[in-house]
Amino acid sequence: MSLPVSPLAPERLPDLPPIAGVRFASAETGMRYKNRKDLLLAAFDPGTTVAGVFTQNVVCGHPVTWCRQILPGGRARALVVNAGNANVFRGAEGDRAVRTEAEATASALGCAPEEVFVASTGVIGMKLDAELIARHLPELAGRLDPAAMADAARTIVTTDTFPKAAVRSVEIDGRTVTVAGICKGSGMIAPNMATMLAFLFTDAAVAPATLQAMLQAAADRSFNCVTVDSDTSTSDTLLCFATGKAGNPPIEADHGPFADALAELCTDLAIQVAKDGEGAQKLITVTVEGAADDRSARRLAMAVADSPLVKTAVAGEDANWGRVAMALGKVGLPIELGALTIAFGGIAVAKDGGAVADLDEAPVERHLKGRDVRIDVSVGSGPGRARVWTCDLTHGYIDINGSYRS
Amino acid sequence: MSLPVSPLAPERLPDLPPIAGVRFASAETGMRYKNRKDLLLAAFDPGTTVAGVFTQNVVCGHPVTWCRQILPGGRARALVVNAGNANVFRGAEGDRAVRTEAEATASALGCAPEEVFVASTGVIGMKLDAELIARHLPELAGRLDPAAMADAARTIVTTDTFPKAAVRSVEIDGRTVTVAGICKGSGMIAPNMATMLAFLFTDAAVAPATLQAMLQAAADRSFNCVTVDSDTSTSDTLLCFATGKAGNPPIEADHGPFADALAELCTDLAIQVAKDGEGAQKLITVTVEGAADDRSARRLAMAVADSPLVKTAVAGEDANWGRVAMALGKVGLPIELGALTIAFGGIAVAKDGGAVADLDEAPVERHLKGRDVRIDVSVGSGPGRARVWTCDLTHGYIDINGSYRS
Repeated sequence: MSLPVSPLAPERLPDLPPIAGVRFASAETGMRYKNRKDLLLAAFDPGTTVAGVFTQNVVCGHPVTWCRQILPGGRARALVVNAGNANVFRGAEGDRAVRTEAEATASALGCAPEEVFVASTGVIGMKLDAELIARHLPELAGRLDPAAMADAARTIVTTDTFPKAAVRSVEIDGRTVTVAGICKGSGMIAPNMATMLAFLFTDAAVAPATLQAMLQAAADRSFNCVTVDSDTSTSDTLLCFATGKAGNPPIEADHGPFADALAELCTDLAIQVAKDGEGAQKLITVTVEGAADDRSARRLAMAVADSPLVKTAVAGEDANWGRVAMALGKVGLPIELGALTIAFGGIAVAKDGGAVADLDEAPVERHLKGRDVRIDVSVGSGPGRARVWTCDLTHGYIDINGSYRS
Repeated sequence: MSLPVSPLAPERLPDLPPIAGVRFASAETGMRYKNRKDLLLAAFDPGTTVAGVFTQNVVCGHPVTWCRQILPGGRARALVVNAGNANVFRGAEGDRAVRTEAEATASALGCAPEEVFVASTGVIGMKLDAELIARHLPELAGRLDPAAMADAARTIVTTDTFPKAAVRSVEIDGRTVTVAGICKGSGMIAPNMATMLAFLFTDAAVAPATLQAMLQAAADRSFNCVTVDSDTSTSDTLLCFATGKAGNPPIEADHGPFADALAELCTDLAIQVAKDGEGAQKLITVTVEGAADDRSARRLAMAVADSPLVKTAVAGEDANWGRVAMALGKVGLPIELGALTIAFGGIAVAKDGGAVADLDEAPVERHLKGRDVRIDVSVGSGPGRARVWTCDLTHGYIDINGSYRS
């Protein structure tokens, strides 16, 4: 099935500058897709540090298990990613497949298998042909290219209708450091630690524990605030590789500007995932304020963003704020009903526990006809705030998911 | 919009015998729907006891607030139900509207307003014209009919494609007592105490506290085990009225056969709700066994039943058990992965932490082509079990909910 490109897609991929110490190569294995690349090798110079956050799904992919196991080493020399088969729920055979990939990569690049991170995305439960992947790796290792990041972004997609990438730069002690990231994700998106697959590359020098803390904080504000369908993937993987080639003094404690750049980059990518949500015609940004704390605010915002009735109403360009109130209420958290305000596109449609009297619906309707729908909610007078992103629920989602596997 | 009748609909309503002490009348107010009845009055003889369970949504309808307030009285003389406007989130005006309905009914029937139960279903947040309802009540009170229960079942529907009713009888001390119920519900179905609207009528004599305990237990096994879209209505109301006309010695402690009849009746109605889930083409029954306790089993089963990816896979007749594993895993409860078994239509497709080798997929595919899909899961060796019902997720759901309000 060939999908039309999301109407929310950016016009083009951003220019992706080479990151010193990082090289890419992609290949077409034919494993599942025809006429497109589906296998990515990224190689990192010696000294590269790494941080990662992974799915909290109890049923997690074999590559996730492997990455968790080697992450404490804090060092990375390679990343191998295949698209089309997620290598999940295959028992001992699934673990062996990851080991095969790591060993073939280590042998091709002259590093240890424990320095090779592995990620897989696609159908759950099917046998992964790791030997096929292993046969491609020496050839890939022979043509690694620092300029091939855009190609890498195109290689890792599955039901995505556009490749996703973003870049940020920041000054550290007079040195410009750059962080670039690629990402894929479109369905089975309710990340509970990270999104489906996102890989960040930076030339900054960062100690692994510090990188881990900053990456985790960035994920909490970005990937953990996006949902397409409330279904949490078994393979969510966010990895950040830091080569240290920028020459900055190594970052060994939380660094505000670098942490901000990382969070902005992750937010940019997370919003791209929502914009490419399966069947998406509109991006929906939900904000909640006045909750008891930020965590409560996020639960309320996610309940709105996950509600099929809210999402179909937005698809139908219907300012059905009653469904927003329903979604907030079903969470079970206390809400000051008399203070509840719901706005579409900045225009209050309900406040003080009831509909706004004599509302001019025309500007609300105009807002809902656009591609970028904002739902802002105030639930009381507490300090808790959250912002999350999702997309509308349309026939496209049914088309894609009624026939994905077959 | 006129909806095609669900292919899962029963051939016809069951015969609904009169329940001694209960009379019905329905009218067409024209408030929202054209050319159909939308207002129901049920009247009960003096001495009728009542029990009820209601939505746990924090944003609850004004009628729910009223019913909760009068329920401790334990006595009922009337029930007023309107379809098309749920009377939710209207502040003091919404409470006044319920009061107007109760007082008009009390005046027409010669009882106290606090003996009049009220329920409303339909759009959230719109002003209810209670005066219009009040004007119809005297006329309705003048033509109450014990034989009009089927008509009542047709009056209370909204997006339902068929009316729902069921009957059970049981012997108590040599007397036959009958329980009959009518119900509506199709979308915004993830009841958290009861379904959208269900009203049960019995000629048994039952003390209010005993009736309440048995009704709650029945709801837990039936309405609380059905989901269409994970969205919990603001107006879920289950009421049971017992007239005592059967002449049995009053039931004053949990009565096994009567409790069983009540639970069976509720289960019958709950399954009808799943069969009429918006856009439903298939009924899905999910069972989970081997969980730590029944509550955990229900959470796991509901995660499968609520997963848009599982529901679209069933719509596409795709035995995508990987999505079932994903849905189980996202709950976060411990699962013995090595013991996990997933079966479609009784045929194991995954076990012992991986796909069944050399599976003959033909009988699985045949099962999925049917209307009645069974997904049975075993997650370990614990004593917890649950069975829940839902429907598949199809284009019909999007059609209905993208344009319901407008």
